[in-house]
Amino acid sequence: MPHIALPQDLPGISGGFAFRPETAKPMRELAHILLHEPSSLTPGERELIATYVSSQNNCYFCQASHGAAAACHLGGEEIVQQVKTDFQAAPVSPKLKALLAIAGKVQKDGKLVSAEDVGRARAKGATDVEIHDTVLIAAAFCMYNRYVDGLGAWQPRDASMYAEMGQHLAEEGYQKPSR
Amino acid sequence: MPHIALPQDLPGISGGFAFRPETAKPMRELAHILLHEPSSLTPGERELIATYVSSQNNCYFCQASHGAAAACHLGGEEIVQQVKTDFQAAPVSPKLKALLAIAGKVQKDGKLVSAEDVGRARAKGATDVEIHDTVLIAAAFCMYNRYVDGLGAWQPRDASMYAEMGQHLAEEGYQKPSR
Repeated sequence: MPHIALPQDLPGISGGFAFRPETAKPMRELAHILLHEPSSLTPGERELIATYVSSQNNCYFCQASHGAAAACHLGGEEIVQQVKTDFQAAPVSPKLKALLAIAGKVQKDGKLVSAEDVGRARAKGATDVEIHDTVLIAAAFCMYNRYVDGLGAWQPRDASMYAEMGQHLAEEGYQKPSR
Repeated sequence: MPHIALPQDLPGISGGFAFRPETAKPMRELAHILLHEPSSLTPGERELIATYVSSQNNCYFCQASHGAAAACHLGGEEIVQQVKTDFQAAPVSPKLKALLAIAGKVQKDGKLVSAEDVGRARAKGATDVEIHDTVLIAAAFCMYNRYVDGLGAWQPRDASMYAEMGQHLAEEGYQKPSR
């Protein structure tokens, strides 16, 4: 049961978005820019960062929906599972591993990010914008995750629903509701 | 030293905002709606929630700037200090105390918010929108705090600078840079 009277039958963050359209607009826009608009990080890489942070925050809805979006971009769920379990052993680029390490520190506390962490990412080819966006994706998912969990939003366990949602997010992005 | 080449001499979140105006726009808009636009919670109450969460996250810049905005709205710094130290003993309404308790749980993990926490807030007169906005202010400051700290942004220790910034935020809100 959600803690407040969210519209029924809208899963996860969609319930909060429908309840308060004023705040939904900038929250959708931020996700769209960070995850969907053109960037030197691929949409799949950015969805992996979002999924990894959401799994560290143990937010079921966000890790399932963004994990499904990442799987859609990257051609399968296995890489998503590997990143969540042990990203250093996952088949992703050394640059993305260094960025995931930064994201993991931001998830705990931004102050844990060290000059050495950033130096490692830069040595693997990360640009300042990529480092900025990694920090902000990780920070933003600390918001989205807490928003979903803190409202007690409905988080269904239906895998096919997340697969459909992931495809919609991968294709259309975050500006418009999926239904 | 910031971790990336942020514009010099812009303190705290302003450096990140100037570095990436695309993401600054929705981040500013969200803060403006949550903290400055009309609401049944006063701007002072909302700034206290933002300041409390920022102090729990130990983000110097955010607790100093929003604490200064709260002090400007509420006529002094003492109440801000009391809320940060022990909000249950602070001279704020029973409703705000119940909302601060929810905000404190969201800061740690949204899943910690219980039906009892929400019931206590409702018994003190909190509406669903006030509970929603409390959850989202707390969640959003988990983003803003991590963004500032994770970029290694410049966080000056000059109290008069924060007093000036707090007055600007209290009067003008969050849509436009202060300079």
